[in-house]
Amino acid sequence: MDLDLVVKNGVIVIASEVLPHGLQIGVKDGKVACIGINLPTSTNTQVVDAEGAYITPGGVDSHVHLAQKNSPTGDGWEAGSRSAIAGGTTTIIAFASQEREDASLYPVLEDYHAKSKDQSYCDYGFHFILTNPTDEILRNELPVLAEKEGITSVKLYMTYEAMKLNDRQVLNILFACKTLGMTTMIHAESHDMIALIIEGLEKNKNTEPYFHAVARARIAEDEASYRAISLAELADAPMLIVHMSSEIAVQHVRDAQTRLLPIHAETCPHYLFLLSEKIKGESHDHFSGAKHVCSPPLRHDPKDLDGLWQSIANGTFTTFSSDHAPSKYDAPGGKRLGLVDGIPRFSKIPNGLPGVETRMPLLFSQTPACQSPEKARLSLPRFVQLTATNPAKLYGLDGKKGSIAPGYDADFVVWHPGSTGACTISQSILHHDMDYTPFEGMQIENWPRYTILRGQVIWDQSNGIVGKMQYGRYLKRGMGQVLHGKTGNLPQGWREDERRYWL
Amino acid sequence: MDLDLVVKNGVIVIASEVLPHGLQIGVKDGKVACIGINLPTSTNTQVVDAEGAYITPGGVDSHVHLAQKNSPTGDGWEAGSRSAIAGGTTTIIAFASQEREDASLYPVLEDYHAKSKDQSYCDYGFHFILTNPTDEILRNELPVLAEKEGITSVKLYMTYEAMKLNDRQVLNILFACKTLGMTTMIHAESHDMIALIIEGLEKNKNTEPYFHAVARARIAEDEASYRAISLAELADAPMLIVHMSSEIAVQHVRDAQTRLLPIHAETCPHYLFLLSEKIKGESHDHFSGAKHVCSPPLRHDPKDLDGLWQSIANGTFTTFSSDHAPSKYDAPGGKRLGLVDGIPRFSKIPNGLPGVETRMPLLFSQTPACQSPEKARLSLPRFVQLTATNPAKLYGLDGKKGSIAPGYDADFVVWHPGSTGACTISQSILHHDMDYTPFEGMQIENWPRYTILRGQVIWDQSNGIVGKMQYGRYLKRGMGQVLHGKTGNLPQGWREDERRYWL
Amino acid sequence: MDLDLVVKNGVIVIASEVLPHGLQIGVKDGKVACIGINLPTSTNTQVVDAEGAYITPGGVDSHVHLAQKNSPTGDGWEAGSRSAIAGGTTTIIAFASQEREDASLYPVLEDYHAKSKDQSYCDYGFHFILTNPTDEILRNELPVLAEKEGITSVKLYMTYEAMKLNDRQVLNILFACKTLGMTTMIHAESHDMIALIIEGLEKNKNTEPYFHAVARARIAEDEASYRAISLAELADAPMLIVHMSSEIAVQHVRDAQTRLLPIHAETCPHYLFLLSEKIKGESHDHFSGAKHVCSPPLRHDPKDLDGLWQSIANGTFTTFSSDHAPSKYDAPGGKRLGLVDGIPRFSKIPNGLPGVETRMPLLFSQTPACQSPEKARLSLPRFVQLTATNPAKLYGLDGKKGSIAPGYDADFVVWHPGSTGACTISQSILHHDMDYTPFEGMQIENWPRYTILRGQVIWDQSNGIVGKMQYGRYLKRGMGQVLHGKTGNLPQGWREDERRYWL
Amino acid sequence: MDLDLVVKNGVIVIASEVLPHGLQIGVKDGKVACIGINLPTSTNTQVVDAEGAYITPGGVDSHVHLAQKNSPTGDGWEAGSRSAIAGGTTTIIAFASQEREDASLYPVLEDYHAKSKDQSYCDYGFHFILTNPTDEILRNELPVLAEKEGITSVKLYMTYEAMKLNDRQVLNILFACKTLGMTTMIHAESHDMIALIIEGLEKNKNTEPYFHAVARARIAEDEASYRAISLAELADAPMLIVHMSSEIAVQHVRDAQTRLLPIHAETCPHYLFLLSEKIKGESHDHFSGAKHVCSPPLRHDPKDLDGLWQSIANGTFTTFSSDHAPSKYDAPGGKRLGLVDGIPRFSKIPNGLPGVETRMPLLFSQTPACQSPEKARLSLPRFVQLTATNPAKLYGLDGKKGSIAPGYDADFVVWHPGSTGACTISQSILHHDMDYTPFEGMQIENWPRYTILRGQVIWDQSNGIVGKMQYGRYLKRGMGQVLHGKTGNLPQGWREDERRYWL
Repeated sequence: MDLDLVVKNGVIVIASEVLPHGLQIGVKDGKVACIGINLPTSTNTQVVDAEGAYITPGGVDSHVHLAQKNSPTGDGWEAGSRSAIAGGTTTIIAFASQEREDASLYPVLEDYHAKSKDQSYCDYGFHFILTNPTDEILRNELPVLAEKEGITSVKLYMTYEAMKLNDRQVLNILFACKTLGMTTMIHAESHDMIALIIEGLEKNKNTEPYFHAVARARIAEDEASYRAISLAELADAPMLIVHMSSEIAVQHVRDAQTRLLPIHAETCPHYLFLLSEKIKGESHDHFSGAKHVCSPPLRHDPKDLDGLWQSIANGTFTTFSSDHAPSKYDAPGGKRLGLVDGIPRFSKIPNGLPGVETRMPLLFSQTPACQSPEKARLSLPRFVQLTATNPAKLYGLDGKKGSIAPGYDADFVVWHPGSTGACTISQSILHHDMDYTPFEGMQIENWPRYTILRGQVIWDQSNGIVGKMQYGRYLKRGMGQVLHGKTGNLPQGWREDERRYWL
Repeated sequence: MDLDLVVKNGVIVIASEVLPHGLQIGVKDGKVACIGINLPTSTNTQVVDAEGAYITPGGVDSHVHLAQKNSPTGDGWEAGSRSAIAGGTTTIIAFASQEREDASLYPVLEDYHAKSKDQSYCDYGFHFILTNPTDEILRNELPVLAEKEGITSVKLYMTYEAMKLNDRQVLNILFACKTLGMTTMIHAESHDMIALIIEGLEKNKNTEPYFHAVARARIAEDEASYRAISLAELADAPMLIVHMSSEIAVQHVRDAQTRLLPIHAETCPHYLFLLSEKIKGESHDHFSGAKHVCSPPLRHDPKDLDGLWQSIANGTFTTFSSDHAPSKYDAPGGKRLGLVDGIPRFSKIPNGLPGVETRMPLLFSQTPACQSPEKARLSLPRFVQLTATNPAKLYGLDGKKGSIAPGYDADFVVWHPGSTGACTISQSILHHDMDYTPFEGMQIENWPRYTILRGQVIWDQSNGIVGKMQYGRYLKRGMGQVLHGKTGNLPQGWREDERRYWL
Repeated sequence: MDLDLVVKNGVIVIASEVLPHGLQIGVKDGKVACIGINLPTSTNTQVVDAEGAYITPGGVDSHVHLAQKNSPTGDGWEAGSRSAIAGGTTTIIAFASQEREDASLYPVLEDYHAKSKDQSYCDYGFHFILTNPTDEILRNELPVLAEKEGITSVKLYMTYEAMKLNDRQVLNILFACKTLGMTTMIHAESHDMIALIIEGLEKNKNTEPYFHAVARARIAEDEASYRAISLAELADAPMLIVHMSSEIAVQHVRDAQTRLLPIHAETCPHYLFLLSEKIKGESHDHFSGAKHVCSPPLRHDPKDLDGLWQSIANGTFTTFSSDHAPSKYDAPGGKRLGLVDGIPRFSKIPNGLPGVETRMPLLFSQTPACQSPEKARLSLPRFVQLTATNPAKLYGLDGKKGSIAPGYDADFVVWHPGSTGACTISQSILHHDMDYTPFEGMQIENWPRYTILRGQVIWDQSNGIVGKMQYGRYLKRGMGQVLHGKTGNLPQGWREDERRYWL
Repeated sequence: MDLDLVVKNGVIVIASEVLPHGLQIGVKDGKVACIGINLPTSTNTQVVDAEGAYITPGGVDSHVHLAQKNSPTGDGWEAGSRSAIAGGTTTIIAFASQEREDASLYPVLEDYHAKSKDQSYCDYGFHFILTNPTDEILRNELPVLAEKEGITSVKLYMTYEAMKLNDRQVLNILFACKTLGMTTMIHAESHDMIALIIEGLEKNKNTEPYFHAVARARIAEDEASYRAISLAELADAPMLIVHMSSEIAVQHVRDAQTRLLPIHAETCPHYLFLLSEKIKGESHDHFSGAKHVCSPPLRHDPKDLDGLWQSIANGTFTTFSSDHAPSKYDAPGGKRLGLVDGIPRFSKIPNGLPGVETRMPLLFSQTPACQSPEKARLSLPRFVQLTATNPAKLYGLDGKKGSIAPGYDADFVVWHPGSTGACTISQSILHHDMDYTPFEGMQIENWPRYTILRGQVIWDQSNGIVGKMQYGRYLKRGMGQVLHGKTGNLPQGWREDERRYWL
């Protein structure tokens, strides 16, 4: 077999282990053809020498907002996917978002396809955001989207006036998705708690950006997470709670997983590294805290960070995503919407942070590749699970994305040996279309040396972006796997499966 | 001092202990004047000889539905209060119930006063059921009701189409009540879960009474209880969850109490003694199960009973009430509403069971007064706490009702010595206006020999009802006490009291 | 009836409630004869005017070490009981302590009787410390001690070379006590963990007093508490864990109580108010930290204090005792034994602190009598439970000590109205025979105005000690009550009571 | 590269995933050389056609007793290793067992080497059982054993008169092993609890085999497990609790793992499939229950099985081992030692069951390879983790055993496609040297078709054992990995690493 590419002298990491040193990866036609020792090369074979560095699967970022209507200053596909590959991410799952008035999902999808077609440096797929889950959509459109379009996951909101669904709607969707084998993602914060606090803050004129963190109190996430899990338990349906920031909420997930409920959990870089202090802004410009406004908000206490890191390490978190959902700080329609007639109004600040590019380097920097064993926050296989393998499996890309094995797409990140890729994060080195990064000034210990997608080097740290915008392909996904627990559980107190009486 | 009444030769039980044998209770002007040894009597002094029996405080039943519009075949005041005193209860707190269309509570209260005035054998008060908690009511009417009318507690529903409030309304009420010092009672079941199941059951034609217990799945109570506690935690407001039937829901309460949240819990006789088997009805007449339809429903598993008894004994439950909310089985407008054109429709069966008369004898039968120490389910002081002292304190009747001490109203139950009051519960021996009892055939070990209200014997087992209907007085209640935990707690994750920014 | 004493104008507090204002207590022959309004007095009647102050039951301090052989500089009976009554304590339960070589308990008891006879200002009893629980003692001597001497409780140690028992010995005692109805107290710290750490500290020459707190790591208490509870669960025997200092250990107790195991818990003033910082001593004299050496040690973190206060409030702690076990600081044989050739050796410092006098004022200062409702740490009834009612019940003095009710001994503390008894704790105002107090300089908000024992004022703050040393009587105690849970539980995993096969 | 062996047409399962169908495994010199598509073969290449079956890593059974002195009728190396390979196990870790009187481990090891040398069909290593952990052994011998002999794990007992260590000895070993990087295995049952029950049972003449399950009450495992975890937490040392049978004990492990303590857990086939009912024996021969006597004992309740299966699925269990520790039923020195003068004496029955051969087929039968998705108890990757990958990593064989990847030893099990290897377990089909199997009559759904060790087929279901006894090699193991949590944790209540003061 005439290999197109051989990556040699690396240390391959997969979800279950660090493979023995010295293995080579052979690539043919964009896929891994074999892994072995001393693979044969020909003159047609490109050879990448990893020089002893770790090689991890290309990143799968399963929570990215690009070119959404409700975020006019956010990144589009070109900038977003460019930023992704510079940070080691080769697959993005972004959102196609239904508006309340959209009676059918088909035109919505067409629209999102139009915006992304030939615009992506990396491979990509879509989750559907449902804000108006009519019977027609649940019964007739979702199956079509799953089968024909490979869209096998939906996302719901329990909060935000423009998006929130009530518990009955959540249940309807969970049952529909369960029947189809689709995965439901849920943004779990109690809308009513938050709305009440916001009203009070505004009445009391406490409207600086920092009060965003007061308004979205942690208990709002704790309660909604428990409720979401209960709804999923009744429906016997798999679910992922997105961007979790609260230790208590994560304990609810842990308890559910212990009982084998198919509950998955996601967290994001900003919840692991940043605290609400940031939202206070600079001393001379409190409004600059708007740059750190996202929901759930950054939390108050270093203890919160510890609790989340614990769940990174003990296996409770399933995926680690960027929730890249930026708005420019200084452009019209951006973060400054929160300055109304010169007066800060935190509730008007567009939510969300950029992060698709920094996601993998930030987390990799906490592995034993970059830290002493005592200081490392997670193992290398756990890094791979969180950033690639698990999102790929959960969202129906297994066998293709998220691992390094024969038959998989040849998507890799080749890191630097040791920590020689270390750098300071700065807006100036990033490739998104934003005007700031919330991680400005943070030291990281490594950066992708090469990003390889389907056998092509698309990011080479010496030469920058070397991939092409049209190279990224749309991914029709299969049905996702359950990674925690299983279906078929009886809610506590049932002696038989009572669902058979009413389903 | 010339005593009106001396009760001698009894063993007085109060909430903290069984007092030394042989103490006498002296009564003057309807109140306990003194407790002591060898109290002086005169010719004007009536003497009741307890003959060695236990004397407990007159029962306070804080959850009774009488003469409510939505229950046309239920007990009115005469029958309900008559039944109460025959079972040892000297104080009832019933409900004045707002309908959705009632913009003001004043006429509602007038109406309820009209129905109860001079109609009660026992003392009584009202909780207000709120189904339309307007700002006007919360801000302006509740304070008036509390101060002028002594109505210091409200009840909310999270379920039932005609009554349910959303989380924001619950929060509004909790904040309003907290400010006033009022107590909030809450019926915690997830409306949306139940509505979905009912739809499915009806679609599948599973509509026999038993499916009521399937429809109102235990997880609906578990979730709503957790949610209610979270709302109270945010509001920093005391709350009582009424008629709890689920071990998991009670664990949420236990956890909250451990953290000193002011969360109280109530259960009822039917949840301790009966299982869903009962709702299956008789073999030749399944619809007779309708007699056991109440919400939350009777649960499936003997293990559920054990879990609740455990919480009776370990102090988690604050009060033990009847939730006397009956409908006649055989009268028009009663339970047979659930037979529609001869077809059972569980969702049309009026909810609720009779129980005001059997409440105290059933529980007393589980104390060491009637059981061997190993078999006793609760201590005598715990019996007193649950049936009298705690509801009196929680609802602002302390110092007057619920204990036996100088200064308190002279309300007592004198039991039989040993178990000689034992009997079999049967519809034929009860004094309500219903045509059945859900406890038919149960053996109990003791029954009140005398019920004494403000120094007057009103029930004498040998002579039956000896009180007068007009004797019962309306009670203007003070503000309730917090019996578990305290206010002033920070929700987890807060580093300071963030409420000051928005209250 | 010609009353000897009437206490009027007070507000009586009992374990279940604050009684209505204005009640009077009538005393005859050293016992409460009646409680009522306007009690009759004669010229023979002494009248104490409480002037509106709270009246609580005389304190029962159930954990006091006096005149023990192993504490040559500790308080004897005169000083200890004098100190007790000045602080509101009218009953002491001290220890008669078996040495390893004592084959019989009878001569030990004789010895302890000899030391206490006619030496006590307050009433008193003994627990027996068992360090050599032979079959002869368990089978033949304990029943005699219980029946003839009224010694119905024993104490065991899981730690200290000279006292510790192994798990089998603990089990043997638990079974023996269960059969007799006696209560077992246990000092729960893992000897082996602590011994290992001490060896290491000494090898590394870390021997300043502060390292005592390092040596007795909290995990040693956590583990031993869990183990002790397990042993009691197997034996189905009531137990009290003494002087608990760890939040985790107390959680084990809470869990056991939730499951209705008859597990009781005690804490002491120093664990609620002091931290390990104190053991560092003064900057110019580190060894003075020896004054704060006790076991378990003072803990490190203010969070520990919060956890214990929570358990004070939520009902987990059963009793609050002084563990008065002092050694003089400056006398030969006292704390300075820990200075060996001028070198500090924490492991040689006699363990224990004085505290019998300050116990009640310290805790009373945290009630709503002295604090705003938000700042109060516990209610007044809870104060009464912890300091008097519960220890009286647990140790077989109910009906006689620990409450204010007719038939009980007339033992009261009359406090000052408001906080006018406030003072700063100082060695100079105390009545023990020690040369320091660990609470030096702490502000307290009230102090007993009168201490009354069996109807006699024995402490009058204006005149000091007015009781007589011989007035204190030895108390033959009855069998104790179970205050949490019950016996008859099956250990988890049993389907029937398997004990019947082997007991 | 000229491959020695190609296995084709299989579906490879590794710890993290089921790899894409159709991959081939190429083997050279006993190791996996490559995995790929269409690997080149030569005439020297043996080809095994898996015909679509699953291929899993050769089993690693890390808990096997062979040729131990204290089990005269147990299996020796020939029979034990023969039985292993017939059931898909290619690596055994057995025990070299110190007797109390052995002052040095070296001669013990020599002895065990002598018994196993050239006697094994599979590769093997040793754990050392320590019953007399002298300073000399801990300080000087263990490092030598680890470095020169590759023995990097020890096992301790908290029970059995002849083996048990006290807590201090356990701590000493944990600290010694931590320093060396070795792994500690611990048999956690409370000796004192069990000894007391046995005495009572014998006194009451309850000595039939079934009482073994009464004697070793579940609470004895629960307590000892909690204690063992606490000791490991203090030592900050990795630990594995062997053969766990209790849901509560496993919850302690789960809690520890949540807090990132490096606590590992093992269970065995008999605890997942069998109940104590089995120990009652046949109706005509109760003593035959002796065949099911092992420690911990089989538990009483089907609920226990569910709890353990839950921990199999949710990731709490780290390894699944046979604890093959058989004694013949009918041979002198075997199970009948428990018949003393014709009277059953459960405490004299040699403990232990055979199971090395049935381990993998029993568990494989519960995967989706053999069960519908709803009925499957665990996923295929989880099967691989438990039976091969995890024990290999935990005991220092990673990179060599336990996975299928280039560089690893070519150890595989090739199963049958579908369930065509189904059979009924029966003594007659097994290869051990025992006279019974506790799983007699159980249906299983698949059986290894081929077992391959270092590239050689050693078991071929059509031809039986085709390997050679001398082929098995002794494995010098490296240091084990921590698979749950990490070291470097502070015990709760510490504010800094206090170990630095005393280590």
